[in-house]
Amino acid sequence: MKEYYLKDFSIYIGNDVFELLLENLIERSYSKVFVLVDENTEKFCLPALTKYLFDIKLIRIQSGEQHKNISTAQFIWDELQKQHADKNSVLINLGGGVVGDIGGFCAATFKRGMDFINVPTTLLAMVDSSIGGKTGIDYNGVKNAIGVITQPKAIYINPDLLNSLPKDEFLNGFAEMIKHGLILDKSYWEKVVKTGFDDSAKISGLINGSIKLKLDVVKKDPHEISYRKVLNFGHTIGHAIESYSMQRDKKPLKHGEAVAIGMICEAYLSKVMLDLSNKELRQIGEFISQYFPKYSLRTILSPELISIMRQDKKNENEDSINFTLLRKIGKGSINHVCSESQIAAALNYYDGL
Amino acid sequence: MKEYYLKDFSIYIGNDVFELLLENLIERSYSKVFVLVDENTEKFCLPALTKYLFDIKLIRIQSGEQHKNISTAQFIWDELQKQHADKNSVLINLGGGVVGDIGGFCAATFKRGMDFINVPTTLLAMVDSSIGGKTGIDYNGVKNAIGVITQPKAIYINPDLLNSLPKDEFLNGFAEMIKHGLILDKSYWEKVVKTGFDDSAKISGLINGSIKLKLDVVKKDPHEISYRKVLNFGHTIGHAIESYSMQRDKKPLKHGEAVAIGMICEAYLSKVMLDLSNKELRQIGEFISQYFPKYSLRTILSPELISIMRQDKKNENEDSINFTLLRKIGKGSINHVCSESQIAAALNYYDGL
Repeated sequence: MKEYYLKDFSIYIGNDVFELLLENLIERSYSKVFVLVDENTEKFCLPALTKYLFDIKLIRIQSGEQHKNISTAQFIWDELQKQHADKNSVLINLGGGVVGDIGGFCAATFKRGMDFINVPTTLLAMVDSSIGGKTGIDYNGVKNAIGVITQPKAIYINPDLLNSLPKDEFLNGFAEMIKHGLILDKSYWEKVVKTGFDDSAKISGLINGSIKLKLDVVKKDPHEISYRKVLNFGHTIGHAIESYSMQRDKKPLKHGEAVAIGMICEAYLSKVMLDLSNKELRQIGEFISQYFPKYSLRTILSPELISIMRQDKKNENEDSINFTLLRKIGKGSINHVCSESQIAAALNYYDGL
Repeated sequence: MKEYYLKDFSIYIGNDVFELLLENLIERSYSKVFVLVDENTEKFCLPALTKYLFDIKLIRIQSGEQHKNISTAQFIWDELQKQHADKNSVLINLGGGVVGDIGGFCAATFKRGMDFINVPTTLLAMVDSSIGGKTGIDYNGVKNAIGVITQPKAIYINPDLLNSLPKDEFLNGFAEMIKHGLILDKSYWEKVVKTGFDDSAKISGLINGSIKLKLDVVKKDPHEISYRKVLNFGHTIGHAIESYSMQRDKKPLKHGEAVAIGMICEAYLSKVMLDLSNKELRQIGEFISQYFPKYSLRTILSPELISIMRQDKKNENEDSINFTLLRKIGKGSINHVCSESQIAAALNYYDGL
């Protein structure tokens, strides 16, 4: 088992972490243990947890980003109230990004803050969303518009849980692993490229590396005052495309799929703004396109996408859209403002690939 | 002008603080300045502010604790979104406890946290609720059930704003000033007793003393891990009576009126549990009863009140109801668990006065 320590909390990684979770819960002598699940994690992941935990109180929500909203948050608060959660209770978020984000938000705001623990069940949550304390819900169609930054008490990562994960869910996490390499560590990027996406066991082997990279960033700037913004690479355009697709498409793009498109577009902007080499731009586009499905942006009016980007909370103000770009592979650079025509050209570049 | 400094923020007190507010806003170069008001503070207090501030964006909510709920929070979030608030905007909460609590909560959660500034307009907010970073809303009838602890960027206290305050509003703040003396400082209690409640100018003169006492507590334990609970004296029973009255009475008890009753009941519990002297118990009851209206508890079934107390977030767990009591006047003591029959006896003691 690996353990990373970040100020007030630890991240445990291994196939034996649930034993330790039980020990730690007993040590803290919580008055009640709540577990937040969706229908998938209840079916596929909860049994692995209940082998160790007993006397838990379940709160069930529906899976899917479309449920990461204020109604679901109210449902969770209602359940916590009805089941008499108190400040000495704990909420375990057993799930992917949605469960972690909304569960963390509800716990952080219930009675002005009760403890929560993340047990991520998707690759995306393991390498990215469960780490860093960002919690929240979407609001009026704007992603993560309402939330707080509060660290969980601990994160328990059991890669065995990935065995039940559908392959297309893997892509979500894979996009963030690609990003970690691109912005922070060229040798990690090369490992990801070499591993590719055909062998999920090998991808699991890269989890540690991604967590370490992300954690280093969060440690330096937990509240995203500046440096942490480096993690936003691919996400300004990616979030806008994801929001757009969620509102329009019958089968909306997954987060990782949208971020993959965002990374290609923003690599293009990196060439324009920071002289990222043509060679690296091409490498990035080719590697990503190999694994992520093509999504036609032709039908999207860029003014509509740009209007969504203006709402992005990453902006310092609404008159400028803020990007994290790449100087080269392995070296992200924060706080670049791109014009609407540059953004339109980037969307066009992706469409032309 | 007086200035108190607490880690990342300052409290400014004086009739000239709005000039400084303007200077500080300019220095921080906020992209947009939002001001949250209710119909009263818009009419009576906003003009004093707009003498100095221009180009502000108003958000109007209705006054009253019954509006400190999730619907009003959603209205504020909607307005911030519609008027394109970003992470470089600031929200000024111009009002009493309700405006400060809900405005602070909405700002602390909007885009995972935008700056907010408190400009308290009631005595209660000046000496108590604006200080300490407790934000939140009531939820399913439970007071402050949802919220966070986040400090404002600054607090500007202008006692001139009290000139328009109705006398019965003064009582709310007066109750907390009494509490500050009772739990922390016998000589301050004696000053409060000597001043009484007949001369509001003289009461204003006590504001500094109360702020200093509260601030000392908050500094030592901002997240209410332990010592800060001393401020809860009078509030376990007080909150329950307030919640009950809010749900039942046409003209519900004001916060200070409920806390006044709570202090008498909990002074009785202090006698039972901690040997508070009969003499001091009598002094407390007599002084408070002189100024606060009598409310008959006879009609209240104590099981119903006790069930509300069990929901109180101050409890470590639902099986025990947690109290802050007095060893003597000027010396509060935290974490005392009282039985249902002791609580019933305390309510009965108040009724018999």
